Amino acid sequence: MYQHGGDFWNHPDFIDFSANINFLGAPFSVVQAAKSALDGICHYPQPDCIRLRQAVAELEHVKAEQILCGNGAAEIIFTLVLACKPKKALLVVPTFQEYEHALRSVDCEIVYEYLSAERGFLLQGLPAMLDHSIDIMFLCNPNNPTGTMMDREMMESLLQRCEQTDTLFVVDECFLDFVASEEETSQSMKLLMNQSRNLFVIKAFTKTFGIPGLRLGYGLSGNTKLLQKMQAVVQPWNVSILAQEAGIAAAGERRFLTKTRDAVEEEKQFLLEQLSLFSSQEKSHFFVDIYGFAANFIFFRSIPELSQMLMDDKILIRDCSNFPGLTQGWYRIAVRGREENRQLIDALHQIRERVSDIGLQCEAERKTDSL
Amino acid sequence: MYQHGGDFWNHPDFIDFSANINFLGAPFSVVQAAKSALDGICHYPQPDCIRLRQAVAELEHVKAEQILCGNGAAEIIFTLVLACKPKKALLVVPTFQEYEHALRSVDCEIVYEYLSAERGFLLQGLPAMLDHSIDIMFLCNPNNPTGTMMDREMMESLLQRCEQTDTLFVVDECFLDFVASEEETSQSMKLLMNQSRNLFVIKAFTKTFGIPGLRLGYGLSGNTKLLQKMQAVVQPWNVSILAQEAGIAAAGERRFLTKTRDAVEEEKQFLLEQLSLFSSQEKSHFFVDIYGFAANFIFFRSIPELSQMLMDDKILIRDCSNFPGLTQGWYRIAVRGREENRQLIDALHQIRERVSDIGLQCEAERKTDSL
Repeated sequence: MYQHGGDFWNHPDFIDFSANINFLGAPFSVVQAAKSALDGICHYPQPDCIRLRQAVAELEHVKAEQILCGNGAAEIIFTLVLACKPKKALLVVPTFQEYEHALRSVDCEIVYEYLSAERGFLLQGLPAMLDHSIDIMFLCNPNNPTGTMMDREMMESLLQRCEQTDTLFVVDECFLDFVASEEETSQSMKLLMNQSRNLFVIKAFTKTFGIPGLRLGYGLSGNTKLLQKMQAVVQPWNVSILAQEAGIAAAGERRFLTKTRDAVEEEKQFLLEQLSLFSSQEKSHFFVDIYGFAANFIFFRSIPELSQMLMDDKILIRDCSNFPGLTQGWYRIAVRGREENRQLIDALHQIRERVSDIGLQCEAERKTDSL
Repeated sequence: MYQHGGDFWNHPDFIDFSANINFLGAPFSVVQAAKSALDGICHYPQPDCIRLRQAVAELEHVKAEQILCGNGAAEIIFTLVLACKPKKALLVVPTFQEYEHALRSVDCEIVYEYLSAERGFLLQGLPAMLDHSIDIMFLCNPNNPTGTMMDREMMESLLQRCEQTDTLFVVDECFLDFVASEEETSQSMKLLMNQSRNLFVIKAFTKTFGIPGLRLGYGLSGNTKLLQKMQAVVQPWNVSILAQEAGIAAAGERRFLTKTRDAVEEEKQFLLEQLSLFSSQEKSHFFVDIYGFAANFIFFRSIPELSQMLMDDKILIRDCSNFPGLTQGWYRIAVRGREENRQLIDALHQIRERVSDIGLQCEAERKTDSL
């Protein structure tokens, strides 16, 4: 089984709801910048990404020396882990799987704090396991795949606790720019960067600017020694010329972020409204119960056969059953454009018909209820 | 001081002899493939590079499962080291510095076998230090920056010894496709891949196909368990869509490799002939003594001020004084096209005049003679 979202390459004619990419696609200026950069591919990329870091610094209102750029946010995660070589890590799961993947690359012991459906996939307090033995803790906020978002108070409590326990608190804000209001996006933990050497924030242009194929992520930290340690354990030419130039163009596209938020919000409301028609309260064999939608994707529970059945309609969604803490029947869909969203909803209606017709057992409901 | 070759970005109007890139540039088909791939940047790259690995397999006459692709050869080096976590490594120096950089990322102890000018920068026998304590040994062949090439007999002896000592023998053949004859390029150690689980071969499209800005390298090994271990410690989307598509196009460009070898050979002969006019036998204060030129670059000794003086002529060459085992006065130049090569030679003639006029002391000669 394919383990990630976005198995587009084996299904190039499918509508891809499985990867959480900005459905507006990359801004024109970003694609143009990458295209122009092709003229320079006979040169090595600039090792320290100076111009790119300056551009990101302006966008994020931080200093250029507080930024490290990578070949996607995933490389930032692996590089951070290699630089720190933690002995014991705390993961709040279900969450993005590359934290665990990276931690295993340095043989790190991992303990898990499980978020549950009953508690809305949110932390109810500080994890009891967060003590001095924990070297590093990852938290994705808004969380992938659950679509839930911890409030600022909880995040600050976690940081405070991490300072007491000398734990590096890694906050992955790759989806923060998708949350509805400017007020919310301004909740970034980066604002506390200068006050804590225990804080590391991960961001990416990949999702926001629709360029996952180009690869561009970055880490932000006030702990410049940590950034230097990271620089020392990664190759000098990790960010391609095209990604650097595309990133510089993207950093100038502030209005695109506003446009994105508005478009995502509108389409998300449409999807939520339509999906609510399939609620388990409706006493159908088929149901879609929504749990989280803070960013540009929706996390829900349905019948275990759903992702397979949607393949018949040439629609890919993310089967989340391989996330630690989740079972069959949990799914994530990206918010896409109206026409594609309608196709998804239409397909769901047809599936409801089919499920009722054949009296398919709703195994997911039984299973997750007994969790 | 800038530590690598190719500081093009701070000197965009300079002629760059400091990076060993194919001076023919990327084939048209490769640039076109990258450009077309821009249409797909809203999708994640295929994690396992299936189509790319199949294309490389055909080019290299190996199996697709014996290949791992990376974000440049540098990422292959870092990933290999992270997967193996060697305790002690042997480096034959001076050589490409990313082996040491990568080994330090996992806190590996490093011992050095020094190649010397007197022995033509070649191993004269098996390194005495190559014993059971050595977990991994890197050898670049042809070697960067010395431009020297170990013969097949020596390479096979090294592999045999590595099998006895259970050492992983990593042969970096990134420059092998540039050596003069098909006969020589067919000396690749990959031919022994199926007979030894201690062999790992590194190659790259970066230099051969003129795409360092795009980043594409790969590792070859008959030890598929090792490749799986490597896959487990690197992010799934490490090779961008553009690099994958460009690589697939490049793998089909066999005739471009022949054309490259012919062009490099012709220009290299021109440069060698012209440079011989500056031999230290000529009793001038200025000299250029050549030590190695097996690939698409020439390694030589000259006055310690040379790279700085060439900057006045807007020419970049690689000052090799920061390579372990080398001192001031050692340089590497890439073979470039005729017009640029002439400009370099003209600049050297002018420097000879200037050096004679001002009676500049030839410190390099004194220093390296007393080595």
